[in-house]
Amino acid sequence: MAEPKENPLMEKIVSLCKRRGFVFQSSEIYGGINGFWDYGPLGAELKRNVKELWWHAMTRQRDDVAGLEATIIMSPQIWKASGHVDTFADMMRECKGCNKRFRADQVEPQSGILFQYSGAEDGSYDFWKQKLLQSEKIKNLVPNEEFQKAVAESAHIRHAPSLISIVREYLISSADVELVSIGQNLAKSTNNPPKSSETYAVMLPLDKPQESADKKAIQFYQKRGMAHPKPIFIAKEKFENIHNICSECGSILSDERPFNLMFKTYVGPLESEDNVAYLRPETAQAIFAQFKNVLETSRQRVPFGIAQVGKAFRNEVTPRNFTFRSREFEQMELEFFIKPDEVIEAIHGSVFTPTPNSQLLSPEPNWGWQAWHQYWVEERVRFYEGIGLSRDTLGFHTQTPAELAHYAHACTDILFKFPFSKKDADGSVKGDELEGIAARSDFDLSQHQRFSGKPMGVFDEELRTAWTKLPKEKQDDLWKRYHDHRKNYLEKSGVESKQAEKDATDDANGLAKGQYIPHVIEPSAGVDRLILALIANAYSEVTETDEKGKSETRVTMKFHPRVAPVKVGVFPLLKNKTELVAKAQAVRELLRPWMNVFYDETGSIGKRYARQDEIGTPFCVTVDFDTLGEKPELLDTVTIRCRDDGKQERLKISELLEFLLSKIR
Amino acid sequence: MAEPKENPLMEKIVSLCKRRGFVFQSSEIYGGINGFWDYGPLGAELKRNVKELWWHAMTRQRDDVAGLEATIIMSPQIWKASGHVDTFADMMRECKGCNKRFRADQVEPQSGILFQYSGAEDGSYDFWKQKLLQSEKIKNLVPNEEFQKAVAESAHIRHAPSLISIVREYLISSADVELVSIGQNLAKSTNNPPKSSETYAVMLPLDKPQESADKKAIQFYQKRGMAHPKPIFIAKEKFENIHNICSECGSILSDERPFNLMFKTYVGPLESEDNVAYLRPETAQAIFAQFKNVLETSRQRVPFGIAQVGKAFRNEVTPRNFTFRSREFEQMELEFFIKPDEVIEAIHGSVFTPTPNSQLLSPEPNWGWQAWHQYWVEERVRFYEGIGLSRDTLGFHTQTPAELAHYAHACTDILFKFPFSKKDADGSVKGDELEGIAARSDFDLSQHQRFSGKPMGVFDEELRTAWTKLPKEKQDDLWKRYHDHRKNYLEKSGVESKQAEKDATDDANGLAKGQYIPHVIEPSAGVDRLILALIANAYSEVTETDEKGKSETRVTMKFHPRVAPVKVGVFPLLKNKTELVAKAQAVRELLRPWMNVFYDETGSIGKRYARQDEIGTPFCVTVDFDTLGEKPELLDTVTIRCRDDGKQERLKISELLEFLLSKIR
Repeated sequence: MAEPKENPLMEKIVSLCKRRGFVFQSSEIYGGINGFWDYGPLGAELKRNVKELWWHAMTRQRDDVAGLEATIIMSPQIWKASGHVDTFADMMRECKGCNKRFRADQVEPQSGILFQYSGAEDGSYDFWKQKLLQSEKIKNLVPNEEFQKAVAESAHIRHAPSLISIVREYLISSADVELVSIGQNLAKSTNNPPKSSETYAVMLPLDKPQESADKKAIQFYQKRGMAHPKPIFIAKEKFENIHNICSECGSILSDERPFNLMFKTYVGPLESEDNVAYLRPETAQAIFAQFKNVLETSRQRVPFGIAQVGKAFRNEVTPRNFTFRSREFEQMELEFFIKPDEVIEAIHGSVFTPTPNSQLLSPEPNWGWQAWHQYWVEERVRFYEGIGLSRDTLGFHTQTPAELAHYAHACTDILFKFPFSKKDADGSVKGDELEGIAARSDFDLSQHQRFSGKPMGVFDEELRTAWTKLPKEKQDDLWKRYHDHRKNYLEKSGVESKQAEKDATDDANGLAKGQYIPHVIEPSAGVDRLILALIANAYSEVTETDEKGKSETRVTMKFHPRVAPVKVGVFPLLKNKTELVAKAQAVRELLRPWMNVFYDETGSIGKRYARQDEIGTPFCVTVDFDTLGEKPELLDTVTIRCRDDGKQERLKISELLEFLLSKIR
Repeated sequence: MAEPKENPLMEKIVSLCKRRGFVFQSSEIYGGINGFWDYGPLGAELKRNVKELWWHAMTRQRDDVAGLEATIIMSPQIWKASGHVDTFADMMRECKGCNKRFRADQVEPQSGILFQYSGAEDGSYDFWKQKLLQSEKIKNLVPNEEFQKAVAESAHIRHAPSLISIVREYLISSADVELVSIGQNLAKSTNNPPKSSETYAVMLPLDKPQESADKKAIQFYQKRGMAHPKPIFIAKEKFENIHNICSECGSILSDERPFNLMFKTYVGPLESEDNVAYLRPETAQAIFAQFKNVLETSRQRVPFGIAQVGKAFRNEVTPRNFTFRSREFEQMELEFFIKPDEVIEAIHGSVFTPTPNSQLLSPEPNWGWQAWHQYWVEERVRFYEGIGLSRDTLGFHTQTPAELAHYAHACTDILFKFPFSKKDADGSVKGDELEGIAARSDFDLSQHQRFSGKPMGVFDEELRTAWTKLPKEKQDDLWKRYHDHRKNYLEKSGVESKQAEKDATDDANGLAKGQYIPHVIEPSAGVDRLILALIANAYSEVTETDEKGKSETRVTMKFHPRVAPVKVGVFPLLKNKTELVAKAQAVRELLRPWMNVFYDETGSIGKRYARQDEIGTPFCVTVDFDTLGEKPELLDTVTIRCRDDGKQERLKISELLEFLLSKIR
């Protein structure tokens, strides 16, 4: 089991999510469906806010990104080009005993005594012989001498001929149903395949006897079709922390085999191979497939990006960690298309190479993939900071060359320290992935060009002009580098060597005429894990003990005002005073067109504050008698109470909207 | 083919959608995938605006609606309870000739001569006999006299014994491969099933000879496994406009049979019946399944609603009319839960019954389902008016009792007059459905209660108190009406009569104690068809002829500012004047946090206006030399040009944001 057995903080978070309507189990009234989660009223608001902020930051606030909203079901050709049909699989191991499936990299280590069996012999003959010897009726049917002889022989010889001849002569033709059955089974047992050579092993605690292991082995071979298996025990051995044992039943796991994670369906009335389609396992591919359409209709030029938010689906073998790894999830992906470094060099003479400390706030024309990659990592961290995830809650992982796909230049993962994140050997928590920012070269567009036969390159007048002005050596150098890069891609993609040389030459000749396939930087974030990070980050509790010694734990969700599902609570001091209620409702109507307002008139003001604290509302506004003018100088003012410091201020109603907007936007 | 052969306006709209990046064909580079459409940069913005406005109007602007965001894949039990597994099917007919499938209600009428066949005889014997007679080699093998006798007999007798005996005696044992084959086939032909009794018919134009029909019939029976069919012709007849002929190949269509429209997949690694799941065909059911969770966590009480926006999938047999009927689409659904009329009557003495002209602007406690239904129809029309669909572009359809589901009280469809909407006999256009507002009684919650075994009722203290104060006759009357309604539901749902009586009695006894299952009003709108309506409604063109007689057609998309994908274009008068550019960019930065801005500095101002007109931008702001203070009194003012009347005003930059916000919100 990969799920930590006990994680008190996660349990509290899951419980709060259910209790306050952030997250429910999908189809809960039907016992749920593993790996699927619904967002309740507050969760839906929180998620909308996050998606809206991302969309705003990525598209509307920039000139160089266009939006897209593509379908979940697309042509299956897309997934052939992307490699998902062939290689988007998890290695899986199945328990030989109980058939439970595990992701190969998530098997929990187990310790104990491992009993091993090389196979099983068929024990049918022995079983039925025993039945026969135990039968009282046989004495009346078969002459004693003949029977004793057969018994004696059968003690030494497997499938004793004299016993078989008794079976043929007396038993099968007898009138007794039981004897006929024994006879038939004995006769048949001589034809049974003699044994199974499938191996089996089971791990048991140190104090368990061999019989317990034998019993499990018998069950194992029975399930494989042997009625009376006699497992062949070969060894027992003590092991510590081995990774091939089922955590549920102790049986050994099968070898690894791949399991494609795409959900499959059929489009149209026929369930035929021609009509197979997949639920997208990522939103990115639609962006590549529509790259040319967007380029041609949006007046963008490289460098520019295409952004998309939407659902994706992966048939995870073991969904886990609440909403962190589920089977249906939402992504926010940007594909930012840039010029290859050779193009930058041709136009600008050289490529700007940043140091790790370079402040990359505003894109420059001479940026190559490294600067763009570093820029997008920083941009994304700034986004997370802007919604309340401070830098110390985050972690980073730079993928090693061994981890990187063959075509990728680099990939940086932004991590969040979740309650379930594992501790390193030194006790520090690195975190789990929120987002990966990958420099994927021109692999994706090149694949779609090869598979669709449609050109995915762009023409760049500036490049064409610059090229003609380059010295010959520079031209040759750039030509060769571009050629070698293209040839390497083509050969790695399985294009035959001669053809690859020809195509790479064409591509490099194209470069000299102003043509190239853009490279891409891909910041790819998961919405659901971000929501979970925001919830975990916001969770805070205080236990207070009153004068009677009774202690109470109060939860405050410290959401950043930008993402908080409810922005402001509006309360009349008393619910039975018409003027207070009317004024409070007027305040609600004033604010509502601009933000999500929670109007509440029941319980004490303290209770109402606590209620809002628990759902993370950053501000509460109370209409009291001063608002109505009891103290004339306070007419049309309200108290506004801030969740995080509990402080209250007096504010004019006319200034309320601007005050709140400045905080929540 | 249900698609109108020619619809110039639709063609223009489809072309504009592609050209300007509103809508692309999904997976276009791979030849597309029928029934799936992507939204390009402008389409994605338009769609976001519409969904955001709906969500805002339905949840944030109201106290009585909570939001939800559930998964697309849910427990398959949900679709059993809802009836979709059993009955969510289209009647489909398949062409007997080319296997093309048609929705039964969308077969185009055909005219011509129908050639009918009652089946086919097996012609193998005749075919191989002919081969035998044509063979030269036979003469050397079989004595001539014997052969001639067999030939003569075979002219009169089917499967002539003398010919068969020649086959056995000479042919099968001969050394000649061809003769052996003929012999074997002749021998076998006596065992062939004598004929097919499957009927077939094909319609041909008046001038075609019978041979053409026979050829088609032969092909038909061959495809069914007969090698040498002899179709049995029974009649030919002239028909006009009959609805059972394939428009592609003329063959007759099969009888109707149901085809379930849900996309099916498997969750988990095994493709077994236990793991079947469906892509939701509507968003509504998740709301019913989570009704109790939302009720318990949101502090709502009946009457209240749950709103959801999300994708849904239907494996349409014939997707058509552009994005109007696609296989992947998005819904905006509200389930508004109300008290049954018996509860209203118990609490308030009577149920308020509206007239068709009642102005229902603000909900009242004594509303029954009729008032709520009428209120929601009006609310939804007001919503459409608020985004630019005036009442005269809409139509209404009140479902007749025959159209209504057995459990529904009423359903009103709001229609839009699409370019492809059909004309009535009187020439008027009724329109096609944008949204249905259904009064669905307590059917849905009752079904989930029965299928999940989880109670879906609510307890109402006000009802319990009111009930005790009712006179006995009133109690009996309400009890009986509620009982009868429940019993009717249970019996119609297949509950056995005695059990239904018992359960209905329990339900009515529950009512007397304050318990009931809420009824529901369901306004259910399709996002994609609304987008298409907004595009069709906005489309407007003017053809202008210049002095040289050259005419040009200009398109303006008159989107309501609330939904327009771009709210404002911002232009510096000249792009090579740094001060103008800097000022224009400052204006862009001022507006951008609040709305989608398009900054454009290329081409003449007139061209830039035209560009914005074609994508439907309602306002354009130009920064000119006066802005910079050329006329000092105009310092820091800009011209703002309105798309619809072309008028220009001068406005202070400091007033710009407020002016625009007042228009676009």
